[in-house]
Amino acid sequence: MKKGIAASKGYAIGTIVIKEDTEIIIDTTKITDVEGEISNLNVALEASKDQLAKIRDKAEKELGADKAAVFSSHIMLLDDPELSSAIIDKIQNDKDNAVKATSEIINMYVGIFGSMDDEYMRERASDIKDVGNRVLANLTNSSTGEVDDLAENSIVVAHDLTPSDTAQLDKSKVVAFLTNIGGRTSHSAIMARTLEIPAIVGLNDITTSVTNGDTVIVDGSEGIVIINPNEATIEEYKAKQAEFEKEKERLKSLINVRTITKAGKRTEVCGNIGKAEDVNQVLENGGEGIGLFRTEFLYMDRNEMPTEEEQFNSYKYVAEKMGEKPVVIRTLDIGGDKVLPYLPLPEEMNPFLGYRAIRLCLDKKDIFKIQLRALLRASAYGNIKIMFPMIASLSEFLAAKEVLQECMEELRSEGKDFNENLEVGMMVEIPSAAVCADELAKYVDFFSIGTNDLIQYTLAADRMNEKVSYLYDPMHPAVLRLIKMTIDGAHSQGKWCGMCGEAAGDETVIPTLVQYGLDEFSMSASSILRAKELIMNQDV
Amino acid sequence: MKKGIAASKGYAIGTIVIKEDTEIIIDTTKITDVEGEISNLNVALEASKDQLAKIRDKAEKELGADKAAVFSSHIMLLDDPELSSAIIDKIQNDKDNAVKATSEIINMYVGIFGSMDDEYMRERASDIKDVGNRVLANLTNSSTGEVDDLAENSIVVAHDLTPSDTAQLDKSKVVAFLTNIGGRTSHSAIMARTLEIPAIVGLNDITTSVTNGDTVIVDGSEGIVIINPNEATIEEYKAKQAEFEKEKERLKSLINVRTITKAGKRTEVCGNIGKAEDVNQVLENGGEGIGLFRTEFLYMDRNEMPTEEEQFNSYKYVAEKMGEKPVVIRTLDIGGDKVLPYLPLPEEMNPFLGYRAIRLCLDKKDIFKIQLRALLRASAYGNIKIMFPMIASLSEFLAAKEVLQECMEELRSEGKDFNENLEVGMMVEIPSAAVCADELAKYVDFFSIGTNDLIQYTLAADRMNEKVSYLYDPMHPAVLRLIKMTIDGAHSQGKWCGMCGEAAGDETVIPTLVQYGLDEFSMSASSILRAKELIMNQDV
Repeated sequence: MKKGIAASKGYAIGTIVIKEDTEIIIDTTKITDVEGEISNLNVALEASKDQLAKIRDKAEKELGADKAAVFSSHIMLLDDPELSSAIIDKIQNDKDNAVKATSEIINMYVGIFGSMDDEYMRERASDIKDVGNRVLANLTNSSTGEVDDLAENSIVVAHDLTPSDTAQLDKSKVVAFLTNIGGRTSHSAIMARTLEIPAIVGLNDITTSVTNGDTVIVDGSEGIVIINPNEATIEEYKAKQAEFEKEKERLKSLINVRTITKAGKRTEVCGNIGKAEDVNQVLENGGEGIGLFRTEFLYMDRNEMPTEEEQFNSYKYVAEKMGEKPVVIRTLDIGGDKVLPYLPLPEEMNPFLGYRAIRLCLDKKDIFKIQLRALLRASAYGNIKIMFPMIASLSEFLAAKEVLQECMEELRSEGKDFNENLEVGMMVEIPSAAVCADELAKYVDFFSIGTNDLIQYTLAADRMNEKVSYLYDPMHPAVLRLIKMTIDGAHSQGKWCGMCGEAAGDETVIPTLVQYGLDEFSMSASSILRAKELIMNQDV
Repeated sequence: MKKGIAASKGYAIGTIVIKEDTEIIIDTTKITDVEGEISNLNVALEASKDQLAKIRDKAEKELGADKAAVFSSHIMLLDDPELSSAIIDKIQNDKDNAVKATSEIINMYVGIFGSMDDEYMRERASDIKDVGNRVLANLTNSSTGEVDDLAENSIVVAHDLTPSDTAQLDKSKVVAFLTNIGGRTSHSAIMARTLEIPAIVGLNDITTSVTNGDTVIVDGSEGIVIINPNEATIEEYKAKQAEFEKEKERLKSLINVRTITKAGKRTEVCGNIGKAEDVNQVLENGGEGIGLFRTEFLYMDRNEMPTEEEQFNSYKYVAEKMGEKPVVIRTLDIGGDKVLPYLPLPEEMNPFLGYRAIRLCLDKKDIFKIQLRALLRASAYGNIKIMFPMIASLSEFLAAKEVLQECMEELRSEGKDFNENLEVGMMVEIPSAAVCADELAKYVDFFSIGTNDLIQYTLAADRMNEKVSYLYDPMHPAVLRLIKMTIDGAHSQGKWCGMCGEAAGDETVIPTLVQYGLDEFSMSASSILRAKELIMNQDV
């Protein structure tokens, strides 16, 4: 038996298929033929793009346009002159061979993205690694590690699973994923939850603990793998599996139910989304609204700022899909640690305490106004609410509202429609905002507590830093007190308070939040139904 | 008239002496003769060490051993194999010439130290730059920029003043400093306050706004320079100067006075020190104790961990000098952004939210125990109190106390003396500690609020980052509420609460702190007398 991090719930009994990693040896020999090495690099880049185009076409057929889009962005990454010229620079200046130069530049990019406090940004680290490995494989004529011809009931085991690995797997045959590394937000974990199959990550050495053809039981709820179980254990888990499926069906009955606690308090359970199309999954899982629409993705995977029109279409799509249900859209939350090719930012010693989100938007009003105009125009098509991130002081909220007023003026004079009464709120994710919530509540329409950052700042512990992540605890008494201060502050002025950090979907935290009177919970789509049930069982 | 940052109070009327900067042009030509370039480097390093030894001897004679010690550490820096081998690496691998390689490595070190939230660490950036410039000057046979033969009443003007610049100046002739760059904590500012002469820093272009021989008035209280004033203005400032001197004399009458507010509340005004010898300045300025003895300096400028005996002697020196007066000693506050050659630490994305201070000490108990044993043994010689930094959670404080208990057991069984009743407290510099102060107060003997970090974390704004430093405000309502919660928390359990951040010496903040009932204020020695008077004038 082995224990890892439970990344996607459910049970599976199946046969092991190990996805071998191609090990690429980085030769550190310096080169003299600079032109020859650059030409090798270009050949490998072209080959990689051709392969990715084929994978994209396959994904489009099998998984739909949504899931295929990632490969377009992979191709775009290889087309990015920033990347190739950084590699070429190393070849020219340091006389590194193409393999070493590529590997170093890719590792640098992976390092930058991998340590970000944003699921979508961290996924990008996987993407870049994935693309980088493909280029390295092509440079060294190694295998690019595809797994073909899966049998029914396959349990795929790998050191890590990349987007292109999962896209190429035959989903109808795979019943679970097991990986050595990764956390709950790694690509393989997210993919497993999307496919609704169990997954366990962070198993350390699962690739060497099993062999192809082994039968294993995967308990995705407890994070347990049982290798070559006996008949009695298999029977036991078949029963658990049946129970789990029954439970899933039962939860589906809550899809169209309004969430009301036993004591009669109406509570909204909503979904967090990062891309406009994600709205469908929220609706399928009974979401009563969108509590957080992150808008960073609109700005990524591209070489120039998104236009007002592009943004408007995205926001309108979500607003229309949700109908009367609320859609809280957060304005751009980007900063020193999140790199956009067309927006150079200063390097910072402590990017989490730096120039980002509203601080950047108030400084670069031209960028901010394009987004606000798009949001306002989309507000004519549904129940959009605007939310500002990283507010530390009342003055920032008022300054942001002033820019919004300017945009309203402009739209009025242009005769363009928008919702004159749209609600404007703020994230409470900086301790100062929680401490002064009673004052801020006089000026906002709502709060949404961002626990991921709030916990981080309250305990002065970067949760991406494994040396101090032990301090990161949503149930720390200081965090709970700040959450309560925020909810009480909102209610003292008749405003509502939501939460869109990970704690909102955490079953161990939800009862406390209901007790504190939280009005709205926003979480990943797959957690919504269970949260609804749990909230409806609370006596408060 | 020009306005800059008032860095040291007082008035001066004198004659300009401009200290010219040696501009060193960095040639980027790649080299082929690696050995020749390394030999150039070694010659320049030796020449630099010889010059520094001479400066040290001069400083020892003129300024005393304390002030001369910095040059021993400069020499040690040049002896550090880490530094020279990093430069040699660049010469060998990147084929950089010695000037370019030295300049890049020095800039890297300066960047690391310059962005730290600790006055002593930032001073190190000046030190390294100073030493680096000397090596570069020797490599390029440029002048090392000494100023000789000062006349009486000289006002020294420079782009920046380094430790070796100031050590070489004839102090009896200098009446003020003016610099283009720097802040209140830059080396020239600190040196001016030590010498008790006015200084204005951050004047941007003072070096080009005046010429040698100009008469100027320096108003160090307002940060104003008046160039070639008329007779009436000179008379006006002579009167101000006389008034200032009278005021200084008057404040001296408070040296031996106990600080008691008008309403009768006994309040202690103490000094912050970073080196054992600084204790003398605190006593000369009427300090009623040491509110913060930073112990990092003991670990710096050396190639191995300080022994228990070395530390014991330092702590004992301070304890004995202070007699019955309290001496609060903070345990090691070092981390990812503060590099010790003998303690390699992981590189971190956000060092201010990382592995440092008590987090590191609890992880490396061997290092921690050496310090605690030294502190305990020194406690037999005076009124020492131990303070733990960066406490985020009760569990950390309890774990630290457990290590302290272990040390006490050891000393008892070794028959070594220590104060069995010594007070053990903690810094409140993380929002969670302020929010839970009432709970923590049950377990500690005292709190000391570290405003520099507390403000930074509460507002999620790195104060060293100029893009967001506008958020850094000790009078922010959230900061004031957290300060009040901390003081109230301490008092609810009958404990005392002090403050050792910069706000404790800030005349605009002190009245509010007195009103909140703060029991102890700790600040730089030069602020003590004025703070005493201000507190004694409060009606609370």
